[in-house]
Amino acid sequence: MSMVITDINRVPETIIKEYAGLGVATVHEAQGRKGLLSSILRPIYRPVLIAGTAITCEVTPGDNWMIHVAVEQCQPGDVLVVSPTSACSDGYFGDLLATSLKARGVKGLIIDAGVRDIAALTRMQFPVWSSSISATGTVKESLANVNSPMVCAGVLIYPGDLIVADDDGVVVVSKGEAESVLQKSRAREANEEDKRQRFEKGELGLDVYKMRQRLAAKGLGYEKAGSED
Amino acid sequence: MSMVITDINRVPETIIKEYAGLGVATVHEAQGRKGLLSSILRPIYRPVLIAGTAITCEVTPGDNWMIHVAVEQCQPGDVLVVSPTSACSDGYFGDLLATSLKARGVKGLIIDAGVRDIAALTRMQFPVWSSSISATGTVKESLANVNSPMVCAGVLIYPGDLIVADDDGVVVVSKGEAESVLQKSRAREANEEDKRQRFEKGELGLDVYKMRQRLAAKGLGYEKAGSED
Amino acid sequence: MSMVITDINRVPETIIKEYAGLGVATVHEAQGRKGLLSSILRPIYRPVLIAGTAITCEVTPGDNWMIHVAVEQCQPGDVLVVSPTSACSDGYFGDLLATSLKARGVKGLIIDAGVRDIAALTRMQFPVWSSSISATGTVKESLANVNSPMVCAGVLIYPGDLIVADDDGVVVVSKGEAESVLQKSRAREANEEDKRQRFEKGELGLDVYKMRQRLAAKGLGYEKAGSED
Amino acid sequence: MSMVITDINRVPETIIKEYAGLGVATVHEAQGRKGLLSSILRPIYRPVLIAGTAITCEVTPGDNWMIHVAVEQCQPGDVLVVSPTSACSDGYFGDLLATSLKARGVKGLIIDAGVRDIAALTRMQFPVWSSSISATGTVKESLANVNSPMVCAGVLIYPGDLIVADDDGVVVVSKGEAESVLQKSRAREANEEDKRQRFEKGELGLDVYKMRQRLAAKGLGYEKAGSED
Amino acid sequence: MSMVITDINRVPETIIKEYAGLGVATVHEAQGRKGLLSSILRPIYRPVLIAGTAITCEVTPGDNWMIHVAVEQCQPGDVLVVSPTSACSDGYFGDLLATSLKARGVKGLIIDAGVRDIAALTRMQFPVWSSSISATGTVKESLANVNSPMVCAGVLIYPGDLIVADDDGVVVVSKGEAESVLQKSRAREANEEDKRQRFEKGELGLDVYKMRQRLAAKGLGYEKAGSED
Amino acid sequence: MSMVITDINRVPETIIKEYAGLGVATVHEAQGRKGLLSSILRPIYRPVLIAGTAITCEVTPGDNWMIHVAVEQCQPGDVLVVSPTSACSDGYFGDLLATSLKARGVKGLIIDAGVRDIAALTRMQFPVWSSSISATGTVKESLANVNSPMVCAGVLIYPGDLIVADDDGVVVVSKGEAESVLQKSRAREANEEDKRQRFEKGELGLDVYKMRQRLAAKGLGYEKAGSED
Repeated sequence: MSMVITDINRVPETIIKEYAGLGVATVHEAQGRKGLLSSILRPIYRPVLIAGTAITCEVTPGDNWMIHVAVEQCQPGDVLVVSPTSACSDGYFGDLLATSLKARGVKGLIIDAGVRDIAALTRMQFPVWSSSISATGTVKESLANVNSPMVCAGVLIYPGDLIVADDDGVVVVSKGEAESVLQKSRAREANEEDKRQRFEKGELGLDVYKMRQRLAAKGLGYEKAGSED
Repeated sequence: MSMVITDINRVPETIIKEYAGLGVATVHEAQGRKGLLSSILRPIYRPVLIAGTAITCEVTPGDNWMIHVAVEQCQPGDVLVVSPTSACSDGYFGDLLATSLKARGVKGLIIDAGVRDIAALTRMQFPVWSSSISATGTVKESLANVNSPMVCAGVLIYPGDLIVADDDGVVVVSKGEAESVLQKSRAREANEEDKRQRFEKGELGLDVYKMRQRLAAKGLGYEKAGSED
Repeated sequence: MSMVITDINRVPETIIKEYAGLGVATVHEAQGRKGLLSSILRPIYRPVLIAGTAITCEVTPGDNWMIHVAVEQCQPGDVLVVSPTSACSDGYFGDLLATSLKARGVKGLIIDAGVRDIAALTRMQFPVWSSSISATGTVKESLANVNSPMVCAGVLIYPGDLIVADDDGVVVVSKGEAESVLQKSRAREANEEDKRQRFEKGELGLDVYKMRQRLAAKGLGYEKAGSED
Repeated sequence: MSMVITDINRVPETIIKEYAGLGVATVHEAQGRKGLLSSILRPIYRPVLIAGTAITCEVTPGDNWMIHVAVEQCQPGDVLVVSPTSACSDGYFGDLLATSLKARGVKGLIIDAGVRDIAALTRMQFPVWSSSISATGTVKESLANVNSPMVCAGVLIYPGDLIVADDDGVVVVSKGEAESVLQKSRAREANEEDKRQRFEKGELGLDVYKMRQRLAAKGLGYEKAGSED
Repeated sequence: MSMVITDINRVPETIIKEYAGLGVATVHEAQGRKGLLSSILRPIYRPVLIAGTAITCEVTPGDNWMIHVAVEQCQPGDVLVVSPTSACSDGYFGDLLATSLKARGVKGLIIDAGVRDIAALTRMQFPVWSSSISATGTVKESLANVNSPMVCAGVLIYPGDLIVADDDGVVVVSKGEAESVLQKSRAREANEEDKRQRFEKGELGLDVYKMRQRLAAKGLGYEKAGSED
Repeated sequence: MSMVITDINRVPETIIKEYAGLGVATVHEAQGRKGLLSSILRPIYRPVLIAGTAITCEVTPGDNWMIHVAVEQCQPGDVLVVSPTSACSDGYFGDLLATSLKARGVKGLIIDAGVRDIAALTRMQFPVWSSSISATGTVKESLANVNSPMVCAGVLIYPGDLIVADDDGVVVVSKGEAESVLQKSRAREANEEDKRQRFEKGELGLDVYKMRQRLAAKGLGYEKAGSED
């Protein structure tokens, strides 16, 4: 039987706000290189950067009925995450659904399937990450679950988890770790800013990261190119 | 033997003009979800939207000779549709051919193969949908047919059929249906505009489309998240 | 044992400068249709066009350590070319490495693997051609060679070779041929300009290239469409 | 509206019988290199070789209902050809449907989608060419057409056309050409047998096909390897 | 920090034994069409059928160190399930590791990456499902987790879950459902046997499943082929 | 201009003979994990294992003319290696060419493109590794080089180099290293045999390779599963 779980717990809005400006690569590194969705998910326009709380929505192949069900579960600040029960590249989502989500304050869509009306979605500046772009329509015949734990693009997502998405891709942070990952992300950013300034001045990573000794220990050799080169 | 069919019948220009502004998803839905070319065809720049009449052109792998033959068959308002007789991603088409087509009033190119000079094509604003981008050149050794019925990206196209192409992809409408599909597309657009306004006000698809009863009949259940979530 | 070759010979800067404005398709044709890297390499932003001298850098899967080693070998005018020893789409390169390369005057990166921080790379206008985009981080554990001859995206590249890259893709010109290919590229450009003007006036390729007789000799037929069409 | 066309015309059984033993490559060449389905279709076991008449069956993504409808239209000697209206790799077909088709004398299945129970299908020696293998089940909710003209794996197929399939792939021969292609296929086979005997004796294709002069005219050069090689 | 979880709970051996002979498609259907791993996983030889308890093992790209760690956690009746933290097709596993697993009574390997020595693995009749075959070797440098919950080929697997794998693919059954799914699988098999006998006698699915009325209600039409066909 | 290099130097037959029975994974490891062709090359039947000297043959897309030229350059013990100048999956090679090569004592074919007549090739037991299987025919119009250095499936191959190919894939060993790699391959085999015996007795890789201390040093932890698992 298919179920819709209502009244889910979400990462608090106060934490989400603090994620503003933090990119996917930073967050992914800060949480120990986990939670990154497959890079087959690409944004339909760039640049783009969002952070919000996941509403999870399963769909059956070629059938977008459950997206309509999921919309009702969305609150301002949510990100709708859609995954088909078997691989499908049809266009599950277009400008009407985007209009509805935008009206509800939803920050964007993550879908391991196709979307359409991307010219309109781009004009509306409604952020979408999808695994394909296709005008193929879908039917409304089969049920599936909303707000159950769900694998999307290779990663397990619980409803209410934090989603961060930008030009590089999409990463999920679990509810229980959203605060600690935030601190680590900021620390990482501060550290990177320091490195960036040193690189701008021409310092080498070999020195900044003190790699020379370890490279030599591993056996790296240097040799001048021969004159015959 | 390879043949060039001349003096083909085309969807009348008066009808083509009426398609201005109608997108691929709309037309595809309006004609009963058929005629959509594979989503491997992508525009080289966005946004873009054209409607025109098909000139069909077969090419052999790595050989663009027949494109030169097809150019002569093109009239103002045509769209050149090119399909290789076996899969090939070479760059069959570049800025010189685009210059020639543009001079003849051709509206764009659909090709299930590669194109090159895409920086120049973008500057010229000559619309191209292709399955790949490649600088690989082609030879001029082998014949094939122009203006025969042809499968391109999985769909059968007759010369003179209507082609609509935009950011979402490419759809073909047969000559005999161009007028009726036009009426249905407009009706669909009007209907969508009404829906859009309701969604903007915050109405839900569940209510707009009266889905709740049918979902319940299929057995959809609702449940509050447990406190342990 | 892994080696770094230093003090390599490069195509002279005086020649590189002359390549300014010459595109990949032109250079590829001019050198007899060789040296084109696989079209899976795509620029992260467009339009873009560079010419520079190759620093070659092998990396192991999921490990970007050698890129840090290669940076030290880069001089102003170089292009860093990176190839994994087995296929990997991880994000080997981001904005810190780009900052370091830019500070050294490097013109761009060619990598048959993934990159990340592409929003920042685009803002910096640091040109990158990659086979994927991925926020996945890499480790620093394994050695490989720098400035050895290396196959990247299907093509053999020697350190110091000329790399030309634009919206269409990437081509390599060997040190020994850089001067002759330059002359042929320019001749080709001049010839194409003449053709472009003829096409703009409406002349057909069939006539410009004098193809009609050869087409007829091969057996191409012409036939009017029947009235039943 | 979805339609089932009954009482279709078929290539006569007397002609089909004559195709016994003729392979796909031979038939494809004999009919002028057309009609070959995409090589993504692969047999589930080898060796295998069939010839029969096409029953065409559209299916919607993730929905195999129409296959049950199509079974009723099958007669002894038919080959069921199934194509989804948009790409889908689910397992549309398994051993129960194969049992049903076998009971009706059907020679095999061609499907541009997935199949399952392939161990059982192999034990039954029921020939299947598919684009994927997947245990994913399908629903029975949506209609589509049976015995309409249909594109399968890139090629247009009319009901009643001749299908030849073997280890190399699948080719379709139109009803009107089945007899003439049969003659050409046999002529080709006879000619190949003569060539095969000459090759077995060590004659070279360069001589058998008298290629040397044409190669030289095109400019092929020969050169001894240098001693430094 | 990377962890190895020891002394995991497993689906009891008494239940596993009862699964003997049950195929993937049957089990997948019986548990409500969930738990099926992506069909990119293919067996290296056929026919093959196993059922056992999962040991989960993460690996980093190009690094098989953790497989050696996981072997120690394997008991007779286990199936080793390996998933890379980012996509990699290298050959993580060969005949030495298979010898070690076989000596421990392990029933097979499921790996969303590459394997090698497949001729030897086939001779040994050690069952392997992999997403690629590659002789590329791996290093032993980086840690990851053993027996943590893990996504493999798109599906979440807990250590100790039941794995069933055959020619069609791989399905996972959660510990808590292994017994109920067993009963449903058997019921399904019994039901299918009855259907099979009816199909063998020539009955149609349209009648066996009583589909005719529902098809008509949906609007399916029948029409004789015209004489012009 | 296209050239055929004749009278190439080859790895001596005495060395080739010593490679009998050595597999691709062993040789690849023994030569320091280089020279492995992309795993998209798969044998058309299994098991299979060959070692021989490379004749390199470029072909243009959809054109197999140069294969006929290359046949003449083949001697007993050679392996014909074919690579298209741009990607193509057409069927370049079938049973007639195989008959010709077999008559000349050629040991097999490596081709980064398609082959056909694979049922006949399997019956003849003529070993072929290809990147696709396709009945699509090719023309004979364009020249390319024979016995020039050539990249095939991502790896540089010189004519006369040693090719080893088996169920796992294809590896090339350069002429200058064929003897030393032979010694290292044998040493590796002897070492593996010792390991195999220890694994068969139930010893763990953790102990055989003395990994426990290094794993602990890297920080690997062990923990009993909780009772709630």
